[in-house]
Amino acid sequence: MKEKKENFNDWYNEIVEEAKLIDKRYPIKGMNVWLPYGWSIARKMDEILRNLMNESNHDEVCFPLLIPSDQFSKEAEHIRGFGGEVFWVERGGNEKLDIPLILRPTSETAMYPMFSLWIRTHGDLPLKIFQIVNVFRYETKQTRAFMRVREIHFFEAHTCHESKEDSENQIKEDMEIWKKFCEKMALPYILNRRPDWDKFAGAEYSIAADTIMPSGRPLQIGTMHSYGQNFSKAYEIMYTGEDGSREFVYQTTFGISERIIGAIVGIHGDDRGLVLPPEIAPYQIVIIPIILGDKEIIIQESGRLFEELKNYFRVKLDDRDDYTPGYKFYDWELKGVPLRIEIGPRDIKNNVITIARRDKFERITVRRDEVKTKIREILDDIQKNLNEKAWKYMNSMIKTAESMEEIKKDEGVNIIHWCGSKDCADVIDNESGKKVLGLPLNADRKKGKCVVCGMETDITCYIGKPY
Amino acid sequence: MKEKKENFNDWYNEIVEEAKLIDKRYPIKGMNVWLPYGWSIARKMDEILRNLMNESNHDEVCFPLLIPSDQFSKEAEHIRGFGGEVFWVERGGNEKLDIPLILRPTSETAMYPMFSLWIRTHGDLPLKIFQIVNVFRYETKQTRAFMRVREIHFFEAHTCHESKEDSENQIKEDMEIWKKFCEKMALPYILNRRPDWDKFAGAEYSIAADTIMPSGRPLQIGTMHSYGQNFSKAYEIMYTGEDGSREFVYQTTFGISERIIGAIVGIHGDDRGLVLPPEIAPYQIVIIPIILGDKEIIIQESGRLFEELKNYFRVKLDDRDDYTPGYKFYDWELKGVPLRIEIGPRDIKNNVITIARRDKFERITVRRDEVKTKIREILDDIQKNLNEKAWKYMNSMIKTAESMEEIKKDEGVNIIHWCGSKDCADVIDNESGKKVLGLPLNADRKKGKCVVCGMETDITCYIGKPY
Repeated sequence: MKEKKENFNDWYNEIVEEAKLIDKRYPIKGMNVWLPYGWSIARKMDEILRNLMNESNHDEVCFPLLIPSDQFSKEAEHIRGFGGEVFWVERGGNEKLDIPLILRPTSETAMYPMFSLWIRTHGDLPLKIFQIVNVFRYETKQTRAFMRVREIHFFEAHTCHESKEDSENQIKEDMEIWKKFCEKMALPYILNRRPDWDKFAGAEYSIAADTIMPSGRPLQIGTMHSYGQNFSKAYEIMYTGEDGSREFVYQTTFGISERIIGAIVGIHGDDRGLVLPPEIAPYQIVIIPIILGDKEIIIQESGRLFEELKNYFRVKLDDRDDYTPGYKFYDWELKGVPLRIEIGPRDIKNNVITIARRDKFERITVRRDEVKTKIREILDDIQKNLNEKAWKYMNSMIKTAESMEEIKKDEGVNIIHWCGSKDCADVIDNESGKKVLGLPLNADRKKGKCVVCGMETDITCYIGKPY
Repeated sequence: MKEKKENFNDWYNEIVEEAKLIDKRYPIKGMNVWLPYGWSIARKMDEILRNLMNESNHDEVCFPLLIPSDQFSKEAEHIRGFGGEVFWVERGGNEKLDIPLILRPTSETAMYPMFSLWIRTHGDLPLKIFQIVNVFRYETKQTRAFMRVREIHFFEAHTCHESKEDSENQIKEDMEIWKKFCEKMALPYILNRRPDWDKFAGAEYSIAADTIMPSGRPLQIGTMHSYGQNFSKAYEIMYTGEDGSREFVYQTTFGISERIIGAIVGIHGDDRGLVLPPEIAPYQIVIIPIILGDKEIIIQESGRLFEELKNYFRVKLDDRDDYTPGYKFYDWELKGVPLRIEIGPRDIKNNVITIARRDKFERITVRRDEVKTKIREILDDIQKNLNEKAWKYMNSMIKTAESMEEIKKDEGVNIIHWCGSKDCADVIDNESGKKVLGLPLNADRKKGKCVVCGMETDITCYIGKPY
């Protein structure tokens, strides 16, 4: 296997297939087959999102994939932003369709004509829904598993509110949900309010969560958009207020995609393979019988432990006869299972269990009667450790830069002073390939000089070369 | 609301929207929006299928939606059967695609090029996978919610085997799975081996499960196909046997769609709305506080009961302030929740719980301390009752017919003697609109005379006007 530090991109491309997450050999560029192991990680992610959405009173729906082009083009900015990257359906059977259809690149224009039918009065608000579907983008850039694909596994929440204030509160709720979600994924992030020229097509403003991959390049892994009344005016989504007045609703969206899986692979993985956070691992524990001496006893004890643990953890008993323990160790390390338990004759004799941690390669011996409590503790500690390590690593990669020279020195993310003008952002982009990610949400307000024009400014911003 | 007996089709069309399963106002014919309640039923169905698939060692995958047309057209019969009813993607962004793509109408031609890469030796067999995705058909016939739509929520299992015998055993396993599944859906069915001219495009033979709707018309709700080596030869899916020989695999598929939901709506519903089998009901129980006298106590006791039940059942506490109990009764009856619990002052005083059954409109009073056990019993009894009632009703609708006159008398399904020729099947179709559903799998072998040509025959078959 490639070494992660040597060449992150090659290592990444190789590991997503080696660990059997996806198969890239499907005969359409950027459309991969989700293999059972990869798909089970995606489904675990979906389940976590569903729970967070249920807790915050969002209802799950499922809208059609196809969108009539006349609906798609109602919001001027939106069609400008997405028009060039959609797949078109213009023929059904042998007939030319009256109205061309597009494959959803995102579902605003599928949902909002229906919202205008659903919402009548203030009593119908807030409307909070979400769906988990695949969306489609005709990418012309280089594709990369999970990070840039043409069929994207996608979560999208859409809300409608009575007032600007309510929609702002929704964005705050989204940020809370996002925080909980990322703790479970063990992913660190920075929140950036994107510059106007880089916001979502049709939004008033966009807040993006960027993580930083080990290559130093930022990866957008979540977005929260405030639409104000841009879409509600285009789609006539109105409500009657308590005073009888007719008003346009205020809207927000919140989007997360399979890029999360790309980030988990890239950030936590090592030269032996994936390292999965316990919260998202399809199997949290694998039990491997070490057949030495009396086979019967070892098989029996492995089965007993499996039965005991399976109601509390996601556990796999690897009792395949035709593979050596060595091969199994290799295989489950590659797949990133957080804990490995080996059951051998000595452990049985001593009434202990030996547990190996995937994240630290530590071996821990625990008393047989304490195994459940100890495993819970160790899994929690792995989750905590991966979070801490990832945050620390991400922060260590962000370098302050005070000149173009410093910016050009490496591929990584910098924090800089910037006057706020598009002109200066363009200079940075042209000279270094780095883009302004936007205004950090929790910026310090220290004054400094714009790295390009030298103007005094209290704007600090992150820049980097996004995937 | 329409009366079900008077006009089944109108009743059906109305109830799917009244009960908030779907919204048909989406601006593309035959593509409906799944509303939260409808989608939660679909997801419950998916979950039941997933469990049955896991138990029988099928792995879940997810293949891309789009299929290159050159792959799609490799199996001659298949393209003949589906070519006229697919949606075509011929443009991405502003570019014409080199190879036109189709939206999967079913996934054989997406999966099998990959199977030919995955399968090397007999050790890779059997391959048993499934996916739950939406598929697309350019229907020109009249569409009807769940029963005939252009975007179809779809389950498809695909298997590869070393021998004909192994693939036959797979079909037997599918029939066992199907039986368990239908018990949970409380759906009765007849299994028909479709006539050759009506089998799946590319199959050696097709077994279809048909149920009968209250209109008397059959609805195909599940299929099991044996492909033999038809597809494996077209896609070069080969394995090396133990003796070193290279052989083509034998394949099967097993398909189930959202039609299941249409059947549940149609077969169990009544003039008050849906009647959901407890196994698939998003909520098995709704608790409605009846505010009389001391509000505090009633709210408290309702909440306590909810907390007590929620770990054992899917339960909803309807504590909406702005609706009367009468409205709530109406609403949850419409939505088909199996059990309603009303919490009023008298019940609290007498230390009992009153339970109303949706299926029989019975009211049952149980002791407060027995409530969990009793609910379990009643839910099991509802599931049993719905199964029995539905089977009995379906069987009562199948009429023996011995002449064309008897066949033409009504819209319903008949069991007839038939010589087996397509000519006679065509006569039946032309004169009555009824089609040969195929040879029943558990037919009695009583001799009789073909209703058309009078030839002596021991073939009995079902005929009807399929949806």
